[in-house]
Amino acid sequence: MGDAFSRRRFIQAASIGAAAVALAPHVRGEEEKTDKKKLGFAIVGLGRFGAGQLLRSLPECQLCKPVALVSGHPDKAKKLAQQYGIDEKSIYGYENFDSIKDNPAVDVVYVVLPNSMHCEYTVRAAQAGKHVMCEKPMAVSVEECQQMIDACKKASRKLAIGYRLHYEPNNLKAMEVAHGGQYGKLRQVVADHAFNIGPNEWRTDKKLAGGGPLMDLGIYCLQAARYLSGEEPTHVTAQTWQPENDPRFKTVDASMAFTLKFPGGALANCSCSYAEHGASGYHFMTEQAYGRLDQAFAYGGISFLLKDRGKPTQLDLPQINQFAAEMDAFADCVMNNKESRTPGEMGMQDLKIMTKLYEAANSGKTVAV
Amino acid sequence: MGDAFSRRRFIQAASIGAAAVALAPHVRGEEEKTDKKKLGFAIVGLGRFGAGQLLRSLPECQLCKPVALVSGHPDKAKKLAQQYGIDEKSIYGYENFDSIKDNPAVDVVYVVLPNSMHCEYTVRAAQAGKHVMCEKPMAVSVEECQQMIDACKKASRKLAIGYRLHYEPNNLKAMEVAHGGQYGKLRQVVADHAFNIGPNEWRTDKKLAGGGPLMDLGIYCLQAARYLSGEEPTHVTAQTWQPENDPRFKTVDASMAFTLKFPGGALANCSCSYAEHGASGYHFMTEQAYGRLDQAFAYGGISFLLKDRGKPTQLDLPQINQFAAEMDAFADCVMNNKESRTPGEMGMQDLKIMTKLYEAANSGKTVAV
Repeated sequence: MGDAFSRRRFIQAASIGAAAVALAPHVRGEEEKTDKKKLGFAIVGLGRFGAGQLLRSLPECQLCKPVALVSGHPDKAKKLAQQYGIDEKSIYGYENFDSIKDNPAVDVVYVVLPNSMHCEYTVRAAQAGKHVMCEKPMAVSVEECQQMIDACKKASRKLAIGYRLHYEPNNLKAMEVAHGGQYGKLRQVVADHAFNIGPNEWRTDKKLAGGGPLMDLGIYCLQAARYLSGEEPTHVTAQTWQPENDPRFKTVDASMAFTLKFPGGALANCSCSYAEHGASGYHFMTEQAYGRLDQAFAYGGISFLLKDRGKPTQLDLPQINQFAAEMDAFADCVMNNKESRTPGEMGMQDLKIMTKLYEAANSGKTVAV
Repeated sequence: MGDAFSRRRFIQAASIGAAAVALAPHVRGEEEKTDKKKLGFAIVGLGRFGAGQLLRSLPECQLCKPVALVSGHPDKAKKLAQQYGIDEKSIYGYENFDSIKDNPAVDVVYVVLPNSMHCEYTVRAAQAGKHVMCEKPMAVSVEECQQMIDACKKASRKLAIGYRLHYEPNNLKAMEVAHGGQYGKLRQVVADHAFNIGPNEWRTDKKLAGGGPLMDLGIYCLQAARYLSGEEPTHVTAQTWQPENDPRFKTVDASMAFTLKFPGGALANCSCSYAEHGASGYHFMTEQAYGRLDQAFAYGGISFLLKDRGKPTQLDLPQINQFAAEMDAFADCVMNNKESRTPGEMGMQDLKIMTKLYEAANSGKTVAV
């Protein structure tokens, strides 16, 4: 991964940094209380992702810094707080999380808990007067998503979902190629995301995850189909596979394959699995071009092959710290009272489509979205 | 394509040639009348494929040679006959095709006509006492396939469908990787085949083609799913797209996306289109490996990337003349009274599944095969 982050500073300066760093208080949104140069982030959930990716990336941000931790493991939190220069008083447990409202250092709460807890902690964070970032999937039902949006609106706080690839140069370029018109209309998207999951993971517990690999992996394929087409699907089909003799898949399916039909004529074939060799990428065909992003959904090392009317080019786009980019982008929205590019409504739409995908798989019918 | 055929002689010697060339008359099937070293082929239909690929490849065969042509264009046939050293008396039109029964030089008739004519000419060839190879799709209905099988059985003639990839080293290796067990069980197949079709092609006339891109392109994806899994699908889903304002797609759809579920747990996502940039390939995930064949369905230039538990290797397998290989393999079957690896039954099964795919697309339901 060394090379993956090597050009981070270049791209940040080019895409967000230059404007944001020079930001004068008077151009900021009216509702912003302070003229802080960096917003304080609280990370809720210190697992592999919360600690290993988000917390680790905060010191690399230009507009954010780590100021609080929320965890059920005080020892782990204390150690990380020391490592990241966080005041020990800003360590919270789940029972006293609501007192974060009295901590003026915290501007943004980033929720990185099991899916079934996203709604509760987003609502509580908004009620504590904090802006909220929440990992995907946004929640485990459309209703929960609506509650989260409503709570943030009521508290006049901003809400964004952690769709990091909307801030990643290769995926951004792919969107442009796929539906920008330069290569004709988009016709097919083919996306796959998979790995072999270990035993006893919360992701394979339906109560905590809300579903199978679709919720955690297939959502990337669904997102790719949506952002490459720039449209919303009208019809979906799906099939799942759930082995009878694998203890990992007692409550959720192991694999799902699904197809989305878009109004402009594009069809998207997607697959996700917790029971196979790793796969992370997509390709797409427009009328005149073929694009393929290997490792499209990975944290780095993404490669982009573009065939323009048959002629192949390997694009050489920057590999950035995607977590720093998405957090800086949200901080920019908060500071300047802008809407996020990945708002709660985007997360809710994914939940709506995923609900339809399960309906299609379970009913054996093509389902209209 | 220069490099694509460079190792032809090596692979033919390795796979078929060595045994077949040394073939003694006494080990041949009882029904074989002659001890010819090369069987005489008649090509029925001298279009891009019949003339440009099959006829062109016959002189490269070890067990076959061109001896007759059947065409509606006598001038074209005469020119090709001269080029390939074929007796002018062995040129037939469609009206006098049946008199081919009196031509002892012809052992095998290879039918390369529009799909809707496959059945008639296969039956007539069998009735003329000739063995038959027929291009895929075998016909436009399961009933026609059954008639073709019956006619060849009744005449004690052999029948094979032109599934050339069953004789191609990269695809053969992929079958072994996918279901050989060395890399765990197969979980996903993802296959795509597409190009932009021109106006006024018989392939977009439903009467002649029997269907849309599924019949001509999607059949490769269906085949890949079948030969990679080594199983037959149990359930299929499908969606199609047929634009209203494109004169090419008045009677057939432009694109189809479909999913096949296999009894061992594998799911296959396939797409085909006549309205997009070229695509020809597949990838698959077993429990422990990822394999990708770029240009898997092409006449040459196939590349095979294998990731074994994450470790990538670019396999360097021979690129052969696939047409010479499939025709030599059939000649070997005829000479030695063996069953073809790609018999009529395989073609009929594809028609059966394709019928179910259209049923799924039209009914909006998951269909059991």
